[in-house]
Amino acid sequence: MSQEAPDGAADSYTVDHHLSDADRNIHAAWDNSLEPTLTVEDGDVVRFECRDAVDGQIDVETTAEDVMDVSFDPVHPLTGPVYVEGAEPGDVLEVELLDLQHKGWGYNVYFPGEMGLGLLPEDFDEPGIHVWDLQGDVGRFVNGIEVPLDPFPGVIGNAPAEPGAHDTLPPRSVGGNMDVKHMTAGSTVYLPVEVEGALFSTGDCHAAQGDGEVCVTGIEAPMFVTARFSVRSDLSIEQPQLATNGPFTPTGADERMYATTGIDSDLMEATKKATRHMITHLHEHRGLTRGEAYILCSAAMDLKISEVVDAPNWTVTAYIPESIFPNDLSGI
Amino acid sequence: MSQEAPDGAADSYTVDHHLSDADRNIHAAWDNSLEPTLTVEDGDVVRFECRDAVDGQIDVETTAEDVMDVSFDPVHPLTGPVYVEGAEPGDVLEVELLDLQHKGWGYNVYFPGEMGLGLLPEDFDEPGIHVWDLQGDVGRFVNGIEVPLDPFPGVIGNAPAEPGAHDTLPPRSVGGNMDVKHMTAGSTVYLPVEVEGALFSTGDCHAAQGDGEVCVTGIEAPMFVTARFSVRSDLSIEQPQLATNGPFTPTGADERMYATTGIDSDLMEATKKATRHMITHLHEHRGLTRGEAYILCSAAMDLKISEVVDAPNWTVTAYIPESIFPNDLSGI
Repeated sequence: MSQEAPDGAADSYTVDHHLSDADRNIHAAWDNSLEPTLTVEDGDVVRFECRDAVDGQIDVETTAEDVMDVSFDPVHPLTGPVYVEGAEPGDVLEVELLDLQHKGWGYNVYFPGEMGLGLLPEDFDEPGIHVWDLQGDVGRFVNGIEVPLDPFPGVIGNAPAEPGAHDTLPPRSVGGNMDVKHMTAGSTVYLPVEVEGALFSTGDCHAAQGDGEVCVTGIEAPMFVTARFSVRSDLSIEQPQLATNGPFTPTGADERMYATTGIDSDLMEATKKATRHMITHLHEHRGLTRGEAYILCSAAMDLKISEVVDAPNWTVTAYIPESIFPNDLSGI
Repeated sequence: MSQEAPDGAADSYTVDHHLSDADRNIHAAWDNSLEPTLTVEDGDVVRFECRDAVDGQIDVETTAEDVMDVSFDPVHPLTGPVYVEGAEPGDVLEVELLDLQHKGWGYNVYFPGEMGLGLLPEDFDEPGIHVWDLQGDVGRFVNGIEVPLDPFPGVIGNAPAEPGAHDTLPPRSVGGNMDVKHMTAGSTVYLPVEVEGALFSTGDCHAAQGDGEVCVTGIEAPMFVTARFSVRSDLSIEQPQLATNGPFTPTGADERMYATTGIDSDLMEATKKATRHMITHLHEHRGLTRGEAYILCSAAMDLKISEVVDAPNWTVTAYIPESIFPNDLSGI
């Protein structure tokens, strides 16, 4: 199949291999003893079909009450592993992201605080959910809020050298669940190779996410990921790197943002404070419940480290774009 | 004096008061017992002349060796305090930043690791300095690198309620040394008021800075800051907030960035790793010494918190814009 490159991709390409989301192509742990589902040559393009993060347990009819029944056993269902010929430990696998295509819907959930998930489990006793209608480049939230979509794979990585089965939740030096929102179409990701053939997998795609992913989910969505693989024996890196065109704002240009600082002697606590202040702002000035605000922050609020040098207090700042709201901010 | 508003400011304005950087207007500690140097009414505009962070001890001829002789006693010389009529504890002081004007030069320094300053004191035994020639909107670095200028006050805050003299290095809930780089002209900053009259001061201006300010300095520059004050008794906030138009990239639009991840179970360590990986990248692929790279990261690299929820490992990502370099990245 030959087709035009999407916006941001460098050129046209031909898909050499298709990997469906059939059970035989899915695994839910990093393990370098898994048999590859596909072997590719240097320069090949693969189109991956990726399941959502909880493997079909949530659909458009799921309610907050149902969220309690979600099992974490299948998290994350990843598509792969792909064996890349010529990749040796110490090399870098270059992954050029050519295209990301969602399937028209996605969801954010957060879980009851007792489960200890997300940035602010102590603030939310009950679970919450928003199922997003994804229309082209926009996801629709409550109160007329529209979040621009910038799809990316939350999980993108190689198998670690350490034997055995490894949980997919934490990212590692070989990549994995990095949740770097700028790994969008047109970006190139560089991943350290620790085992022969790299054993690359991807999945857990997000239609949009703020830097931080504070409620523990981006807009989780089943998706197609198309990528070109190259072995870079000339490079050496300790942890993943990338080249990207963003987007760095929803409109792709400077625009008005509202921002809340979190100032504290502990960097994580500063992060929590900035996020809490934003949730309060969205509750008081944008009419959202605190749960809705938590979800919107996870989907569209960006956390920046303003300074980590003015001892003993650090400043983390949380930014929400004004352009996602139907009206100008009133009363402030 | 009446004048046109600069880019980003809402409208034209009249400066009601000028505060020079004469000794009588300068103080180097937060202390609510200090006599105000100026009393203003709600809505007044003040033009502050601000000294550089180390109060004139560094100039265009200063060398790395001289940096060892810098005294921290006068840090930071702030202009103020300004008493704002009507401001009461519990109110919010709205500070509309109308104009920032540098004086044509600035500097970055980092100090020997034994002093414990900056994000990576363990990596740098010796001090370093770059004196910047600031020509309009651009600062000139080594190797043809040009950093766009987006001036802002590193310190902007009110006096704390707690009696006594307080160090100006750490930011607090009343603001202070927040180093939020988006507090640029056209931005509005909201500061909690803890004492009658607010007792506002500003200083420690930076001609540019990356999110993080990793080497402990932005492009430190003496500057003029013009701001309008309004008392907002209708608002209540715990820590500072702001509305801003950025800029969020050097060109004001999406552009190519190179980025390095830092993945670790400790958020500060993840921040250090992302920064170290960027320093290595700039050394290997852009021909900078590690010291030059440290300074460039402090002036132009942005730290984003990609995720703080994929326990037990967090991802911090450091972004450097490709547009500041004279050539495309080769060899990667």
